[in-house]
Amino acid sequence: MTSLVLPLPGNEPLAASLAQRTRWEVASLGTRTFPDGETYLRVQADCCRKNVFLVCTLDRPDAKLLPLLFAADTVREFGAARVGLVAPYLAYMRQDRRFQDGEAVTSRIFADLLSSRFDWLVTLDPHLHRYRTLGELYRIRTWVLHAAPLLASWIAANVERPLLVGPDEESAQWVADVARPSRSPYVVSTKLRRGDRDVEISLPDVGGYRDRTPVVLDDIVSSGRTMVQAVRCLAVAGLPPPVCVGVHGIFAGTAHSELVAAGAGRIVTTNSVPHPTNGIDVSNLIASSLTALAS
Amino acid sequence: MTSLVLPLPGNEPLAASLAQRTRWEVASLGTRTFPDGETYLRVQADCCRKNVFLVCTLDRPDAKLLPLLFAADTVREFGAARVGLVAPYLAYMRQDRRFQDGEAVTSRIFADLLSSRFDWLVTLDPHLHRYRTLGELYRIRTWVLHAAPLLASWIAANVERPLLVGPDEESAQWVADVARPSRSPYVVSTKLRRGDRDVEISLPDVGGYRDRTPVVLDDIVSSGRTMVQAVRCLAVAGLPPPVCVGVHGIFAGTAHSELVAAGAGRIVTTNSVPHPTNGIDVSNLIASSLTALAS
Repeated sequence: MTSLVLPLPGNEPLAASLAQRTRWEVASLGTRTFPDGETYLRVQADCCRKNVFLVCTLDRPDAKLLPLLFAADTVREFGAARVGLVAPYLAYMRQDRRFQDGEAVTSRIFADLLSSRFDWLVTLDPHLHRYRTLGELYRIRTWVLHAAPLLASWIAANVERPLLVGPDEESAQWVADVARPSRSPYVVSTKLRRGDRDVEISLPDVGGYRDRTPVVLDDIVSSGRTMVQAVRCLAVAGLPPPVCVGVHGIFAGTAHSELVAAGAGRIVTTNSVPHPTNGIDVSNLIASSLTALAS
Repeated sequence: MTSLVLPLPGNEPLAASLAQRTRWEVASLGTRTFPDGETYLRVQADCCRKNVFLVCTLDRPDAKLLPLLFAADTVREFGAARVGLVAPYLAYMRQDRRFQDGEAVTSRIFADLLSSRFDWLVTLDPHLHRYRTLGELYRIRTWVLHAAPLLASWIAANVERPLLVGPDEESAQWVADVARPSRSPYVVSTKLRRGDRDVEISLPDVGGYRDRTPVVLDDIVSSGRTMVQAVRCLAVAGLPPPVCVGVHGIFAGTAHSELVAAGAGRIVTTNSVPHPTNGIDVSNLIASSLTALAS
């Protein structure tokens, strides 16, 4: 069966890259916004009896959902055999239970919505916290990719004598995975979160690593508070300006400039969310999963 | 069975007014936006075995849909007997068929989404064009309200010797309904639409009405192009500055200031979409339909 890659607006570069690696056709969606804020959408490709992979990373998800559902329903109406969603960044993974009475468990509602429209979901390092697997949330076939090997390769190629610094104790295993190929030392912070933007970080004693370049790691850089605090702690401990490496660079509001102002050296993210810091390409990784799904 | 009115953000004034008129409880949703653009939502009321009416007007709909679905699913999870949607302005009524190959028929997809989540839909003057009734689109019980009598009363009370001016030939019946109670004369324009913002209007000869105050009517004021053109045509014909009356005042971008600059006198809309021009209150009309639905 033939396959087709179809990007939602903003996802064209990744889609082109996926099409090149899979040797599949890439098509385009005609979209525009009417003066009243409604979306116009047109599928400019033959979808009949094809696997159609919609590419739509889901940072800032609220305004993206409806166009995505329009596209999914329309390609299915045009006879797509299977409809897959490639969402390198997957939204609504944080509200995974009811912390206070009356709260919407948005992770479950969002997963139900996508599960009702797609056959497949491909994503990269989703923020699994209280869930062990995506299968606890999504009723469809999900394929979870891991950026750790790519981060490890990038660090090995770009940072001499790194000291890896993880964001919290939960991340220890992940940081160890990134550190292993280069046999780098690593530490993890202790994190106390008081609110969306109110985070306190403390580092173990890193005084013995003043001859190393610290590499601050995190899966998601959103408000940037965790990384900013880690950068400051490292400066206080007398280490050189750290390299900051994130899988998903959301960079809400002024997060990027705050990170620079705090003293970060180079800042690098994967292209799961388009951003000027993108330096680690995940398209090979994603392309392999698409080929496997479609075969 | 008891009933509860629950507004989405921005719909609190209308919800309070509906609660006062129905003598039902009004509750609130706690909502906020996380730094990464995701929505937090909390239902601060007991919904169990109640009719819950979510109030959410649907201008600029894309970013409103997901919070609305979160609220609907959550009140149902908390045991609501019936979940109704009060959307004084209903979105996605314009793309009602496929004009070019590949187009998403968004009116149908949007209606399917809402039909899968709500038991009832109450709306005011939806933009039915090629559909005769909402029942052709929505699988749930729909209740369509009409603003014409309210517009007629407002004009009778506020405009001396009005001449009503309708936007196009399709609106003739509607304009006649608004004109009848005050026995006012009316004309309708001839409309040629070339694009979203490119509209040409021509008026019949109105030279005999120079002693009257023109009242330009339309159901939706979005880009405002139709009204702007009508206002200009009336000035050319030597009539006094017109009063502009719209049911739904979307006022995209600079529409309001363009209308003022074109020479509009007073501009009045219903409170179906919150806007400084709101001067015609639809809450009594909506409240009667809610009482009937819940009985």
